Amino acid sequence: MASVFGQNFKVSVFGQSHAPGIGVVVDGLPAGFAPDMERLRAFMRRRQPGQNLLGTQRREADLFDVLSGLAEGRLCGAPLCMFIKNIDKRSSDYQGLKQTPRPGHSDYPASVKYKGFGDAAGGGHFSGRLTAPLCMAGGIVLQILEEKGIQVGAHIQSVGEVDDTPFDPMAPQFDALSKGYLRVLDEEAGERMAKLIDDARLELDSVGGIIECAVTGLPVGLGQPMFDGIENVMAKAIFGIPAIRGIEFGSGFAASKMRGSQHNDSYTFDENGRVVTVSNRHGGVLGGLATGMPLIFRVSVKPTASIFLPQQTVDLSTGKNAELSLKGRHDPCIVPRAVPVVEAVAALAIYDLYLDILKEKSYGTE
Amino acid sequence: MASVFGQNFKVSVFGQSHAPGIGVVVDGLPAGFAPDMERLRAFMRRRQPGQNLLGTQRREADLFDVLSGLAEGRLCGAPLCMFIKNIDKRSSDYQGLKQTPRPGHSDYPASVKYKGFGDAAGGGHFSGRLTAPLCMAGGIVLQILEEKGIQVGAHIQSVGEVDDTPFDPMAPQFDALSKGYLRVLDEEAGERMAKLIDDARLELDSVGGIIECAVTGLPVGLGQPMFDGIENVMAKAIFGIPAIRGIEFGSGFAASKMRGSQHNDSYTFDENGRVVTVSNRHGGVLGGLATGMPLIFRVSVKPTASIFLPQQTVDLSTGKNAELSLKGRHDPCIVPRAVPVVEAVAALAIYDLYLDILKEKSYGTE
Amino acid sequence: MASVFGQNFKVSVFGQSHAPGIGVVVDGLPAGFAPDMERLRAFMRRRQPGQNLLGTQRREADLFDVLSGLAEGRLCGAPLCMFIKNIDKRSSDYQGLKQTPRPGHSDYPASVKYKGFGDAAGGGHFSGRLTAPLCMAGGIVLQILEEKGIQVGAHIQSVGEVDDTPFDPMAPQFDALSKGYLRVLDEEAGERMAKLIDDARLELDSVGGIIECAVTGLPVGLGQPMFDGIENVMAKAIFGIPAIRGIEFGSGFAASKMRGSQHNDSYTFDENGRVVTVSNRHGGVLGGLATGMPLIFRVSVKPTASIFLPQQTVDLSTGKNAELSLKGRHDPCIVPRAVPVVEAVAALAIYDLYLDILKEKSYGTE
Amino acid sequence: MASVFGQNFKVSVFGQSHAPGIGVVVDGLPAGFAPDMERLRAFMRRRQPGQNLLGTQRREADLFDVLSGLAEGRLCGAPLCMFIKNIDKRSSDYQGLKQTPRPGHSDYPASVKYKGFGDAAGGGHFSGRLTAPLCMAGGIVLQILEEKGIQVGAHIQSVGEVDDTPFDPMAPQFDALSKGYLRVLDEEAGERMAKLIDDARLELDSVGGIIECAVTGLPVGLGQPMFDGIENVMAKAIFGIPAIRGIEFGSGFAASKMRGSQHNDSYTFDENGRVVTVSNRHGGVLGGLATGMPLIFRVSVKPTASIFLPQQTVDLSTGKNAELSLKGRHDPCIVPRAVPVVEAVAALAIYDLYLDILKEKSYGTE
Repeated sequence: MASVFGQNFKVSVFGQSHAPGIGVVVDGLPAGFAPDMERLRAFMRRRQPGQNLLGTQRREADLFDVLSGLAEGRLCGAPLCMFIKNIDKRSSDYQGLKQTPRPGHSDYPASVKYKGFGDAAGGGHFSGRLTAPLCMAGGIVLQILEEKGIQVGAHIQSVGEVDDTPFDPMAPQFDALSKGYLRVLDEEAGERMAKLIDDARLELDSVGGIIECAVTGLPVGLGQPMFDGIENVMAKAIFGIPAIRGIEFGSGFAASKMRGSQHNDSYTFDENGRVVTVSNRHGGVLGGLATGMPLIFRVSVKPTASIFLPQQTVDLSTGKNAELSLKGRHDPCIVPRAVPVVEAVAALAIYDLYLDILKEKSYGTE
Repeated sequence: MASVFGQNFKVSVFGQSHAPGIGVVVDGLPAGFAPDMERLRAFMRRRQPGQNLLGTQRREADLFDVLSGLAEGRLCGAPLCMFIKNIDKRSSDYQGLKQTPRPGHSDYPASVKYKGFGDAAGGGHFSGRLTAPLCMAGGIVLQILEEKGIQVGAHIQSVGEVDDTPFDPMAPQFDALSKGYLRVLDEEAGERMAKLIDDARLELDSVGGIIECAVTGLPVGLGQPMFDGIENVMAKAIFGIPAIRGIEFGSGFAASKMRGSQHNDSYTFDENGRVVTVSNRHGGVLGGLATGMPLIFRVSVKPTASIFLPQQTVDLSTGKNAELSLKGRHDPCIVPRAVPVVEAVAALAIYDLYLDILKEKSYGTE
Repeated sequence: MASVFGQNFKVSVFGQSHAPGIGVVVDGLPAGFAPDMERLRAFMRRRQPGQNLLGTQRREADLFDVLSGLAEGRLCGAPLCMFIKNIDKRSSDYQGLKQTPRPGHSDYPASVKYKGFGDAAGGGHFSGRLTAPLCMAGGIVLQILEEKGIQVGAHIQSVGEVDDTPFDPMAPQFDALSKGYLRVLDEEAGERMAKLIDDARLELDSVGGIIECAVTGLPVGLGQPMFDGIENVMAKAIFGIPAIRGIEFGSGFAASKMRGSQHNDSYTFDENGRVVTVSNRHGGVLGGLATGMPLIFRVSVKPTASIFLPQQTVDLSTGKNAELSLKGRHDPCIVPRAVPVVEAVAALAIYDLYLDILKEKSYGTE
Repeated sequence: MASVFGQNFKVSVFGQSHAPGIGVVVDGLPAGFAPDMERLRAFMRRRQPGQNLLGTQRREADLFDVLSGLAEGRLCGAPLCMFIKNIDKRSSDYQGLKQTPRPGHSDYPASVKYKGFGDAAGGGHFSGRLTAPLCMAGGIVLQILEEKGIQVGAHIQSVGEVDDTPFDPMAPQFDALSKGYLRVLDEEAGERMAKLIDDARLELDSVGGIIECAVTGLPVGLGQPMFDGIENVMAKAIFGIPAIRGIEFGSGFAASKMRGSQHNDSYTFDENGRVVTVSNRHGGVLGGLATGMPLIFRVSVKPTASIFLPQQTVDLSTGKNAELSLKGRHDPCIVPRAVPVVEAVAALAIYDLYLDILKEKSYGTE
């Protein structure tokens, strides 16, 4: 089923890097909601390629058309289809990739899976370009969630060994996030990250990083036990972003080194008489359910697989080893452009869970 | 939907810690397969409580009945239902937990979610006891996968700061795994882990750890792009196990610190002319698809939330803070008993993907 | 996936006619609801075998156990599992059916599908006995729906050529339904039906019929466009009942003979200012959506396939034709016992749609 | 979820009658298959409006663009997106329909459902125009099925009281079907149908009919027990076509009048030693499973709701009754254009089941 997400609403992503275009159909959005298209375009620009030398030089304005789902500027209840034409294609850069699969890419397993009939140009449907439809869908959903008092924000936690200030898990500093290409809390760290990325670029190499994401305003009890908890649904969605290699919630892997007495977060009442925890190592989720504290998770982004340094691979047509020198336009670090993608995809996951909890609203003995 | 897993087959888990019993219905297993019930019982014993002081003292033999799905010892194509009666219940130990929710547990968000009508006794449906049905279902599926040449194995990678030898990602040492309560590659490390767990127990505290899992024999191309890749499906399943706080594939979070030239795995031909990578930092999966190399992932297990040290919490009935002293029977470290659970759940995820790929078998121009 | 129903909640049916038992797991019911178990037992008795000579002589009290999902007599939010032990099995009656498949039964295609490993005894998972779990699940859901003001009722519209008075589509006469084995509006017609069934029984034959079902109190707009309209979801559920050969809504097949001017129902305002139609040929559903008028549908039930008259079939073991003389205990007409099953399954379908519409509640600009 | 169909592959339909366009995304088609686009266009023309006076005068060439999913003329494994621009829109014809809902249409329940924000122009997403995307998706799938030896064909069984010769259920006469606007076996009946439709048109009225569909070449055992049998899946899909009011399989509603001895189809061996039935009243499906005999079903199509005769309705803005005189372009009988739609949608249902059965291929003890 692959490119369809959601149990309570459906997001269907389509397109290939070098097809006529890329797009998304979203079924199950609320009739009457008036999306702010200017704001969506601004959100899309955060992911857009060709912004500077730190990212790919493919220039795509990512101007989208709404093919259906709107009436007089409002969602009308019918499936929303949004579409971006592919313009700046250079398929010639990808000649031969079917024969000599790129290390770190899906080229080889995809060629086996699709028996050689897959669309390899630019990575086809596996291209990072397919994160644009995710941003279109997620960008709308972010606006819907905001109306419910739910906010999603992410920043670059690290690039290589350079760390940003982490979010305060009790109150993520969404307002303090920088607005530039590198979204960070500590602008000085951002400058060092930029330097690191540029170094990697000049060395024809690439570098990875970590993105931290927070969600506030979740209703207590959001999520379901076992297979539809927040972590399950979020992880299923987030691994839909290329290059993600891991996800952790709250203290995450560090929790494995702790004692229970160090890790458990005590409960107390806040000034408004609401139940809160005095710390937030659990990252806002226990037993799959939202506790009302900010949801905190981090994802690991691997270094871009497409590097310009020569690499060893196989030549499937000759059965011999081969050296690969990539052409094309590739980000030396995809972490900066992945930040809005993480926000968008997180919104899709949260919205699916939010719809789930609505089903409980009129439950029982009301 | 919560306790139902699978797109190509369905696993429905039911039961509460103190209900008449716990069980699972599996719909979509292959008619004709003859499960080895003795082997399943042996597998279940690895998860069983009451084995020694390192685990909970609740004594449950976890003897299961097959209520449906078998005919003359073979799967008959009808849904398989397996059931375990709860025997050694002590609900009195759980009196009051609705009023004073345990830190680190789902008690509080579950009480909000279910409006006070949830079954809190022993954690109800959120109890670690519900991993027994997962093991029943997964234990059968492990046998089915084995017949296809697919093997799943896990070990304790760490408890607290004590590390086991990691799996060789090129060839996981399934045969070298110890057979005792603590499944490790390095028995001496296992002894130090046991000591650490016992120390935690004596200090009325608990400790966390990391489990590493490997799957060999996956057909190249297994998995789907975007939302049904191996990572997505595996993560969705694995977070169904209580206390898991993170999952990473291949180099995982360490990849975020690497250069592309360090992280990419070169392709070559092996002695049989098959395409392989010369290293396995990608953990057997690229673009969501199996590369044919061993699948490697690690999960972080938090320290058991139920500790006997006094803890601060709230009293929901009085609206005041309260000190909580737990009774009941709790594992000072759930990592050892979680190892077979990770294997079982991994099997469920892989089998769902395996059925998916079968749909491609007669695809197209055959 | 077969025996799992529901997109917004999940009903998993398990069991075979001659397995240890039959049952159902329902995930997604409202915590806090207190099912009236005495009423559920009364509902189950309407379907129960062995009531008189008009039905099968297999005597099963259909006493069920609740294995999970309840706490202190209320649904607790965890999956509800209900189970019935099979008692009065006579598998010997079914010897040989694998070799000589019964005309009108799934024996032959099931033996091919399951490669001879299917459980043929008593029809296995295909047995009409599996409608008992449907009644357990549906019986609970009927009570939940009733609390929302939604009522479901069915009657025997016809047996063979004997017709009952049809429901008034503007106001189905639920209160006028007879309470006996044959649920009808016209008791005199019921007596003639009984005579017809008894004649068929004495002639070692069987007879079919039509069941009409109505649902009142549906919120206007219930249902979704295209594939999740009321008709789609209802039909998918209803064909889960063995022996159903057709379903029609409102005027159904008769609509095909009408002019638009005869078929369209005009709108008007009722005394309370609500929009209603002045007639109800559309059966309460337009474009897949509830109009607020009673939902009306009819299903065709074929004559019981298991008859005692000798029949021609094949002997799969010899490759020759064979004459089949059935033993066992079979209903000469399953229509009477199918009436509560239709009500139960209709409730499951409506509840799935009801949960769907809840997701629209907080939609948009509220 | 509404406009998404399929468990083993996904069909997502989008668009409104007066939106920029209409389209479909299909995820899960076989890489390598080369669709015959000329043939698909020919198939689409059968459904196309504006062909003659018997259908709507809206002129839409229904020329489609493939936005994704193809590479070098073959399916590439990525989601296939096909799109039709809306050209000949006359939204002015639909002014006022929100205030004065058309009898027999979804206007009223949709306006309640979407709180007045639905797209009413031309019926919006509920328009019969949305059957074009169904034909695009189904037209491709018909070609794929044909390669597996599975054929789907339908004809007009009746318009009003005029009947066509029914299919021979033992061997449907696909080759004898007429090729004109009215697809029938008996051309003389076709002429009388045309006369009846034209009469209705001149009387500003409309007329309904019945479509009969057959599918040959189904593997024995196709379908699943209970909720995913052929009838369940087919009915769920078929009711996605507007104006369908009933569906019956094999003898259908007539079975309700029969004795078991009249209805049961005896088994025998055919000349090739295959098990067949000597008659086909069961319509090729028993217990939800294909028997290998032709699948036969009929659907009832109501008379077009949009008629030009004045009708009574309500004015939602004034709260008073109102007379409605429709403008716009409407088919006096949609049955002829619905024939390819039934074929297309049947193909989608069969393909979903076909993929299901593939999962059983390597089952068990092979």
